[in-house]
Amino acid sequence: MLSKNRIKYINSLKVKKYRQLHEAFVVEGAKSVLELLDSDFQIEFVLVTQEFQQKYSSILTRHNVALETVTTADLEGLGSFQTNDSCLAVTKTKENAFLSPSTGEYMLVLDDVRDPGNLGTIIRVADWYGISKIVCSRDTTDVYNPKVIAAAKGSFTRVSLYYTDLTQYFDKINDGKRQVIGAFLGGDSLYQFQYPANGGIIVMGNESSGISGQVGQFVTDKIMIPRFGAAESLNVGIATAVMLDNMRRQVPL
Amino acid sequence: MLSKNRIKYINSLKVKKYRQLHEAFVVEGAKSVLELLDSDFQIEFVLVTQEFQQKYSSILTRHNVALETVTTADLEGLGSFQTNDSCLAVTKTKENAFLSPSTGEYMLVLDDVRDPGNLGTIIRVADWYGISKIVCSRDTTDVYNPKVIAAAKGSFTRVSLYYTDLTQYFDKINDGKRQVIGAFLGGDSLYQFQYPANGGIIVMGNESSGISGQVGQFVTDKIMIPRFGAAESLNVGIATAVMLDNMRRQVPL
Repeated sequence: MLSKNRIKYINSLKVKKYRQLHEAFVVEGAKSVLELLDSDFQIEFVLVTQEFQQKYSSILTRHNVALETVTTADLEGLGSFQTNDSCLAVTKTKENAFLSPSTGEYMLVLDDVRDPGNLGTIIRVADWYGISKIVCSRDTTDVYNPKVIAAAKGSFTRVSLYYTDLTQYFDKINDGKRQVIGAFLGGDSLYQFQYPANGGIIVMGNESSGISGQVGQFVTDKIMIPRFGAAESLNVGIATAVMLDNMRRQVPL
Repeated sequence: MLSKNRIKYINSLKVKKYRQLHEAFVVEGAKSVLELLDSDFQIEFVLVTQEFQQKYSSILTRHNVALETVTTADLEGLGSFQTNDSCLAVTKTKENAFLSPSTGEYMLVLDDVRDPGNLGTIIRVADWYGISKIVCSRDTTDVYNPKVIAAAKGSFTRVSLYYTDLTQYFDKINDGKRQVIGAFLGGDSLYQFQYPANGGIIVMGNESSGISGQVGQFVTDKIMIPRFGAAESLNVGIATAVMLDNMRRQVPL
């Protein structure tokens, strides 16, 4: 039976402060946990229903993780989402390790993306378009927030994030050799833009205020997704997908 | 002071059955209500805070709507969203009127899009790319759901929706002159596809199961957004944006 201490521990990980203290986070649902098992994340333990355990016994045995069998009611009481009826993993977070684009590589930079659903969507979209590095401003929402992990649909296991002060970051990596492409309302048309064949950085801004002035000074190419109707703006997850789709049409992997 | 009957009425409109009974729905927040005032929707009444009323007095007077001044606490108690601190409108729904694409026009068809956030996003994206008609299967989520209206960010005032049986619909409008382009995992590459210059229909499917077999038989062109990484799928709102962006690059308005 699930101990009170374990319940308390899992619940504490809904809060960023405790995720940082314990260097751990929660992954819910079959799909995400199965992708987690195939990743290099260090898993503390997995709670599984008997049904899930039987269905995936060979995978679970192969990965040799600490398992505890629980009821569906246990899982629903614990998780952030009512739909989880199969499993929940507690996993070590990764170090906040420096990232920069290799030669020829495209990388994303996020300037204060605050909504967890948006960050999760951006991670999933990045993974789809073969982007594996995202550098985030310190105020960008925490990747280990359960809503980010849920929206990222397992892609968080393949995309690395690095949180830092973006001004200092650009000062450090800016060698004048890389184009920094920023999505701006009022920028040049994306449809006329030629993405550099040797890679670069694509910057996406905050949901309300876009890219900040401080970060904007490092942008070499201000680009706007052409608008044909009357909507005032696009959601930042949508805009990221369109920017990356246009990039990959020109610069496939 | 807000009457108990009015509170009860507004709360009832969170439920589809009562929206259909009263032929009315709720719009929350300054931006959406201001766009609503500029639309041809028939407004029953608007609840406003004193601050909002003063800030927008000329607009409110010009539109001659029934106003009631309320407190922020009233609004927060009523709405579906905690962030609304300005206004709330109750508005007549529109008739479920038949829609079909005019010559040269592009139209969207949604086959069982169930998530309100996704439908709202699709409406906003359609509005951005100059698409004003969406035909939905009967099981597609209700456009007047508060979460759809919130995610659509005012674009619901410019994009019309028609709910119908899609098989009967395609049987009716199918004159062999229009291409029906469907987003399918495993379809032909979007990057090689030439969108018809004379318009057409773009079909997007359900979040889990994609386009159904019944609707798929009317699709003339099965298209897939090229994938470069390992994510299993894209969110349907994201996929709609990428399909429309590629279309508009070739067939601008």
